[in-house]
Amino acid sequence: MLPVARAARLRALVVSRHGTAAMSLRTARCLHSRSSHLNSAEAAATAPPATHEAEYAPSLLSEIAARRARAGKLVAGIAAASDSDMFKGPQTGKPKAKRWDDHLSAESKSREPCSLKQAAKHLKQPGLISLGGGLPSSELFPLDELNMKVAMPPDFSENATASHGQQVSIGKYDVRDRDGTYDLSIALNYGQSTGSAQMLRFLTEHTEIVCKPPYADWRVCQTIGSTGALEQALRMFLDKNRGDSVLTEDFSFSTALETIAPLGVKAFGVPVDDQGLIPEAMDELLSNWDAKARGSRKPHLLYTVPSGQNPTGATQGLERRQAIYRVAQKHDLFILEDEPYYFLQMQPYTGRGQPDAPAPSNVEDFVSSLIPTYVSMDVDGRVMRMDSLSKVLVPGSRLGWIVASEQIVERYQRHAEVASQGPSGFSQVIVHKLLDETWGHEGYLRWLMNLRLEYTKKRDALLAACEDNLPRDLVSWTPPAAGMFLWFTVDHTKHPGAGTRSLEEIEQEIFDSCIKSGVLVARGSWFQTEKDAPLTSLHFRATFAAASPENMNAAIARFGRAVQDSFGRR
Amino acid sequence: MLPVARAARLRALVVSRHGTAAMSLRTARCLHSRSSHLNSAEAAATAPPATHEAEYAPSLLSEIAARRARAGKLVAGIAAASDSDMFKGPQTGKPKAKRWDDHLSAESKSREPCSLKQAAKHLKQPGLISLGGGLPSSELFPLDELNMKVAMPPDFSENATASHGQQVSIGKYDVRDRDGTYDLSIALNYGQSTGSAQMLRFLTEHTEIVCKPPYADWRVCQTIGSTGALEQALRMFLDKNRGDSVLTEDFSFSTALETIAPLGVKAFGVPVDDQGLIPEAMDELLSNWDAKARGSRKPHLLYTVPSGQNPTGATQGLERRQAIYRVAQKHDLFILEDEPYYFLQMQPYTGRGQPDAPAPSNVEDFVSSLIPTYVSMDVDGRVMRMDSLSKVLVPGSRLGWIVASEQIVERYQRHAEVASQGPSGFSQVIVHKLLDETWGHEGYLRWLMNLRLEYTKKRDALLAACEDNLPRDLVSWTPPAAGMFLWFTVDHTKHPGAGTRSLEEIEQEIFDSCIKSGVLVARGSWFQTEKDAPLTSLHFRATFAAASPENMNAAIARFGRAVQDSFGRR
Repeated sequence: MLPVARAARLRALVVSRHGTAAMSLRTARCLHSRSSHLNSAEAAATAPPATHEAEYAPSLLSEIAARRARAGKLVAGIAAASDSDMFKGPQTGKPKAKRWDDHLSAESKSREPCSLKQAAKHLKQPGLISLGGGLPSSELFPLDELNMKVAMPPDFSENATASHGQQVSIGKYDVRDRDGTYDLSIALNYGQSTGSAQMLRFLTEHTEIVCKPPYADWRVCQTIGSTGALEQALRMFLDKNRGDSVLTEDFSFSTALETIAPLGVKAFGVPVDDQGLIPEAMDELLSNWDAKARGSRKPHLLYTVPSGQNPTGATQGLERRQAIYRVAQKHDLFILEDEPYYFLQMQPYTGRGQPDAPAPSNVEDFVSSLIPTYVSMDVDGRVMRMDSLSKVLVPGSRLGWIVASEQIVERYQRHAEVASQGPSGFSQVIVHKLLDETWGHEGYLRWLMNLRLEYTKKRDALLAACEDNLPRDLVSWTPPAAGMFLWFTVDHTKHPGAGTRSLEEIEQEIFDSCIKSGVLVARGSWFQTEKDAPLTSLHFRATFAAASPENMNAAIARFGRAVQDSFGRR
Repeated sequence: MLPVARAARLRALVVSRHGTAAMSLRTARCLHSRSSHLNSAEAAATAPPATHEAEYAPSLLSEIAARRARAGKLVAGIAAASDSDMFKGPQTGKPKAKRWDDHLSAESKSREPCSLKQAAKHLKQPGLISLGGGLPSSELFPLDELNMKVAMPPDFSENATASHGQQVSIGKYDVRDRDGTYDLSIALNYGQSTGSAQMLRFLTEHTEIVCKPPYADWRVCQTIGSTGALEQALRMFLDKNRGDSVLTEDFSFSTALETIAPLGVKAFGVPVDDQGLIPEAMDELLSNWDAKARGSRKPHLLYTVPSGQNPTGATQGLERRQAIYRVAQKHDLFILEDEPYYFLQMQPYTGRGQPDAPAPSNVEDFVSSLIPTYVSMDVDGRVMRMDSLSKVLVPGSRLGWIVASEQIVERYQRHAEVASQGPSGFSQVIVHKLLDETWGHEGYLRWLMNLRLEYTKKRDALLAACEDNLPRDLVSWTPPAAGMFLWFTVDHTKHPGAGTRSLEEIEQEIFDSCIKSGVLVARGSWFQTEKDAPLTSLHFRATFAAASPENMNAAIARFGRAVQDSFGRR
């Protein structure tokens, strides 16, 4: 244990400023270099309890830092097994998650652990020589070190990074030679399907900061991004031979729909409004489910994107989420919470030329400003949350994570062992170096705060372009509170072909005309959940993520002209 | 077109020495910076034909370099679509692959292209502004550059790399600002499920050098490693509702078996000898297939590891491969060729204290020394080869590739779009910088030659340890020609419990005793293909990949004692 005075000093340090925090963490690890594996029980017995009822407390960051200091240096070598329980605060008084045996597919239930990966447990035995797994010797890796220049607070801008970004270095044997926790010799060898212990620690702590799950046996597992995680999750719960189906928004992420269809199960759409899924409609649909007419048994799985839904841009508010969760409880649905845009919750839209809403003044305010996640209200452990770095750091990391109950994560992990084998080691070690060792939790939250403001600017630029260029009597939209997308509803009843031409035809005409005039927007029909049903409303989706304000203005002008042309307005 | 004299000079340069080759390639690209997309037809019309009958010709490397020079600078931005046809030499006179519609699963056949990814084709239109895909702006990526220190020929050793490895740098906007072909702004954004065009070019050319497929419409697609590729491939061909099954070696890679089982299909084992699968046994098994007794229809899929098979270490010779291919043709099997150890083909084992066999003197000799791949004899396009960097570069890259016909690769790609989305961008850009821009094809082949000698040393050290420590009347083995594994057969008939105790029990006893004395070896039963059948022979698998010679000696001594203990010899 650290002396009390020193621990208090550390705690004070880590909440002060980012740079200091990272340093003090490193110092703390040096002071006390024992394995956290050995000390997790001890840590759990002495750390202040992290009750789930509590709102985000400024002390949580310092509590995590103190917990790390108490646990001592994280010792995790090549392919070391790890799980979130090694890194979580105490879960005293929380219930355990329900079991989901009836919800799982035959495929998922039949998975056995990998013999070779299970054998790795013997590696803990002191003095054991392994001639077991076919792991290459790190000596034969052709890289000696990686260096990178990264953005630092307070100025995360590209220019600041280019001119005075921080240089950080990842050596081959930093663990052996420089008292590091992670290095190339470990990251570039084989790993576990959970991903490395080093990244798992950071993500477990991040989950405590953001989600605070109200049940005890939650766990985190790294993924290769939410596209891959969703495919695994669907196979875990859906069984075509059982007549399974899945519920989702009536316009849903097209790639998700294209993942579901080949599994031989149907997706059914729940009506949405400006806040996404309508709980009453969902309840009614499920209460009156006619399996024969639907050709599927009553759904036991809900797939939803709660924040900045793709494609509608809708964000479910707190009460909406609570109501949907209650409907899920009533009908015993398991929830797949897909949240790539969670941290792209933006500043409230104040209207053109109006003063901006005040930005969060510190990371505590920022975290408090976020709408609670489903996991944070998940007393049953009926949610699997999919998180990803694609939208908030770099898509090319192919690195994400899930949060769910121990049972669900264990099943997921068994599948990942024979599929992805976990994310790239290059990605993990680079992201760890940046998020954990350079920025720390506070620095990463500041990065996300900065992103909030950047996306607010982008959204506002697209909204301005729409106000300037679109015929308001034909095209309507709601300013999105999160995400990357603006969803247009075009009033098809005013189309000269209304009643004689199908909406698909009119959509196609407008889309073709857009392409011809040089703008690509996504067609609403791509996202229609029930593909067999005729289209009953006319939509297009535009993103404000990538184009410059000038280009957005030009592009929306082209889109506006394409709509007007089709409606015979020009 | 380059002036003829300059092209000839380039060709001469690129075969001379590695360092020069890389430089001249770069120069060539600068000389002629047009898109290869535009010029591939032109290149095809003028390049000398790469006939598949020809043995590896020293001119192939220079031919590839000249082809690149003619094609001009590769222009491939964020998420640019690409396929191998852009990078292949002319395939004049080769037949097209057969179609495999009857072999594909219902799941695979039902896959539709991703709407959003398909829409990317419009991005080629000049002046088009995309508000389509939700790609973040690279401006918001927090990395400015990556630098690394890498091994260089002729001395690839760890010490040489640490003291004078080559520094290479990857900037954020190398394409825009430094006439580069690939950079962080592209690699760290979203990509296609095929992986980047930049890496695909290198891997397509590498496939020409190594495999020389004898049919015209072969393609390459990047993967997240062969574990993930195998899972996708199995789902592409196996359908439990059709009563499908898969054929493999009677002892097969345990993870592959654990991937197959949850799909609800059976795996059946073909007897093996020192050269792996016995074609006559395979023919007999298939010719007399009793679907009712087997509980599965006659297999239409073969999964095999031809070189350094896991776990038996067996390597199929050329004639063996040809005979197996003929059996596959006779029974219309599709072949999954899993080749992680292909480049770990070692020097012939000459016996203890004997002079080493002479190493290949140059890359041409090296490539000629390799046993031809199944793809290289695949006149029907009935092979999907899985390749991976895990065993030859770093497992942590999670980067591999498949080679198969256009039809098969297209189906694979449709699945990858909704699963992995292709390998990590960090992995791709780092590996590209090393393999393509720093080493070039010749440098990479020299790296593989070096690895051959390193693994030969490791294998010989394990063989020496066995000769010194194992009771030859109880334990036998064959020196492996490739891979990482040595397969022990223990003569169970000499066991005091023979006839009264099961082989499983005896295996367990020896394994437990090994763990107790401090050595981990893999149990033969883990690899038994038909899990329901009783074990009829007693095996253990040891790897020589990771341990030092001293540790191998100590470990094998412990293993030897454990065997002797169980057999009542001590």
